[in-house]
Amino acid sequence: MIRIERIRADIEALRAFTATPGAGVTRLSFSPQEGQARRYLLTEMERAGLAVREHPSGCLLGRLAGKNPGRPAVLTGSHYDTVHNGGAFDGVCGLVAALEMARSMREDGYFPSNPVEIVGFLEEEGTRFGYGLLCSAALLGLIPAEELAALRDDDGVTFADAAAACGLSLADLPAEVLRPDDLKAFVELHIEQGPVLEQYRREIGVVDCIAAMCFGQVTVCGRADHAGTTPTELRLDAMRGAVEVIGRFYEAAGQLGGGVVATVGKLVVHPGSANVVPDRVVFSVDYRCRDGGLVKRMRELLLEALEALKALGLSYQYEDGGVLPAVQMDARIMASIEEEAARLGYSSMRLPSGAGHDAMNLAEACPVGMIFLPSAGGRSHCPEENTGWEEIAKGARVLEAVVKRLCES
Amino acid sequence: MIRIERIRADIEALRAFTATPGAGVTRLSFSPQEGQARRYLLTEMERAGLAVREHPSGCLLGRLAGKNPGRPAVLTGSHYDTVHNGGAFDGVCGLVAALEMARSMREDGYFPSNPVEIVGFLEEEGTRFGYGLLCSAALLGLIPAEELAALRDDDGVTFADAAAACGLSLADLPAEVLRPDDLKAFVELHIEQGPVLEQYRREIGVVDCIAAMCFGQVTVCGRADHAGTTPTELRLDAMRGAVEVIGRFYEAAGQLGGGVVATVGKLVVHPGSANVVPDRVVFSVDYRCRDGGLVKRMRELLLEALEALKALGLSYQYEDGGVLPAVQMDARIMASIEEEAARLGYSSMRLPSGAGHDAMNLAEACPVGMIFLPSAGGRSHCPEENTGWEEIAKGARVLEAVVKRLCES
Repeated sequence: MIRIERIRADIEALRAFTATPGAGVTRLSFSPQEGQARRYLLTEMERAGLAVREHPSGCLLGRLAGKNPGRPAVLTGSHYDTVHNGGAFDGVCGLVAALEMARSMREDGYFPSNPVEIVGFLEEEGTRFGYGLLCSAALLGLIPAEELAALRDDDGVTFADAAAACGLSLADLPAEVLRPDDLKAFVELHIEQGPVLEQYRREIGVVDCIAAMCFGQVTVCGRADHAGTTPTELRLDAMRGAVEVIGRFYEAAGQLGGGVVATVGKLVVHPGSANVVPDRVVFSVDYRCRDGGLVKRMRELLLEALEALKALGLSYQYEDGGVLPAVQMDARIMASIEEEAARLGYSSMRLPSGAGHDAMNLAEACPVGMIFLPSAGGRSHCPEENTGWEEIAKGARVLEAVVKRLCES
Repeated sequence: MIRIERIRADIEALRAFTATPGAGVTRLSFSPQEGQARRYLLTEMERAGLAVREHPSGCLLGRLAGKNPGRPAVLTGSHYDTVHNGGAFDGVCGLVAALEMARSMREDGYFPSNPVEIVGFLEEEGTRFGYGLLCSAALLGLIPAEELAALRDDDGVTFADAAAACGLSLADLPAEVLRPDDLKAFVELHIEQGPVLEQYRREIGVVDCIAAMCFGQVTVCGRADHAGTTPTELRLDAMRGAVEVIGRFYEAAGQLGGGVVATVGKLVVHPGSANVVPDRVVFSVDYRCRDGGLVKRMRELLLEALEALKALGLSYQYEDGGVLPAVQMDARIMASIEEEAARLGYSSMRLPSGAGHDAMNLAEACPVGMIFLPSAGGRSHCPEENTGWEEIAKGARVLEAVVKRLCES
């Protein structure tokens, strides 16, 4: 039986492993705080009767082999790394619900026909190494081990060295990659991180797709000059160019409509003195929509705005990882979530996910489904992030029922 | 006689006292590099026959008492602190020209009717303690000693402690303040730091005024939310507000015309993750014009743009030190500079200074004049900053002639 007090104890224990006490949860991949969380989770997984292992990708795995250890596993879990000064529920909620499901299965003497495997992902947020969904990609071999190994954090530490400091060897990764044959399905429970479920007063969200998205970095280059002595017409002001482009970027999202969202969350000015005209402005762009065509159109409009900088004498660089297409959730898993929620007496609705999730990578290997839980005030990625204990328990009950159906079908 | 090789040797010696070798000159007030420069300058001033002292404000002073030691002095010099990764000529040029003038006067056996005093200012740039023109203000008692003492650098070190580490006691400052009675005039030679003299092919710039200016800091406050899951209409995006305000700020400068310049050189985003809608954006504003009325109008337009944020649900804070009025140069000194330049066969023109200078503080106490020298490509506050040795020698010759006229008139 799912027990609310254990869910609460897990989340409160993990919340304390933060580099920013009193200012939200900051738990970067392979940091000391992540090490504390890793030890806690491995211990709890073992206590729940799971066979645990630390995958060379950085992922934690805990397996309930069941009646037929050779069959493909039903995987469930989520990430436990965070953004800077984030909340206690993002990612952790899904991993803790999976852990509680495992405890419940053991207590109930449930012995599945297919193996059940719990997973804790790292670097989902991309806070440390700059790319999100990284360890789930590595788990599945979607990123070459050498490329992963060479990624660096802001201090120049490579992914390989950071993982090695935690006793993981990326050299072992290729042999340990999970194949589609190893996986029957993946179900991820996650907080919505948005306001929709709260607004519609639904207890369970059934994700129908994860939006198409594009993440890029723009560098606008001009020339540094004295802020007092250089007439406007002789300036090559990189900040002026950046503000122009960002304004057009927001405008494009508004004009396209269709639920496009556009964000500039990071911006750095060089040289960064109040009395020096900036010679370089570097900023992030993040744009998403369930309609992949609109994301592609946003990209074109952004590039047009950047090209227009040349007329001002400015130059630019733009890099992105391409437009990630929208990912559809499995129709049978969606129906299972809806049915099990109804059976348990919980209200539900379908909705898209505007956030990226490790489920996007898993969808390359097996059918995937996602269960969303309401986020108070739609807030996430901030210390105020909150989902009620009872709401999480409801989610865990639905998760358990859906995983059982997948194991027995 | 002014000797070009000594000017060059001085500037090259001082250029080597940098915290960033190979990346321009970084010489912050009371830093180890400033200590090296201080010892060099005190030694050279003594060799030039001047009576040297280290003023409790941090300024270096070297005095040629002349025939009437009790009379008010003609002061000349400039600063020798720098911005981060600045050039070798900003400030240093004027101090070295004054030093070379003193050597020349001694060699020529010139014995002035009024004392001549050479000054080296610190913290003109405000790079370490956040406020520019600081030591010249202290020299004249324009800032209370306690207020000066309490200013802190980015590491939390107070001005008083930093000065004490150099053997200076701010407790001595009040008794050592220079009074208007002590000063007959102040003449500062400085590089233009802009492109005007080069464009007009003039050897000597006669500054007619220092522009009115205003320096402020804007904070735009919104709410942090997830970049993927929060629909545009539910966001309180501080970056969006900041970009709107900065766009209007630049636009206002363009519309007002009259030579208004507007700069946003510093901008910091919180929390600063690519996938989080910013809750706070802090940026500097720097706006200047020789017409003080236009600077006031800029300030009004900036505040209007900030007020308009409220309609978007955003809030703001704005702080500035008020509009510093334009400072007029003394008409007789301007005429002297022009006449002496012409006598020496150098072309000249009048122009305003868009940059602030210690002369602004000195104007509170005595008549002031400024001689500008061309800056190659108008570049300044960067490693590429350059003014030719012969151009500096020409400036030093004009400076010597003007100082002599002031001493004898």
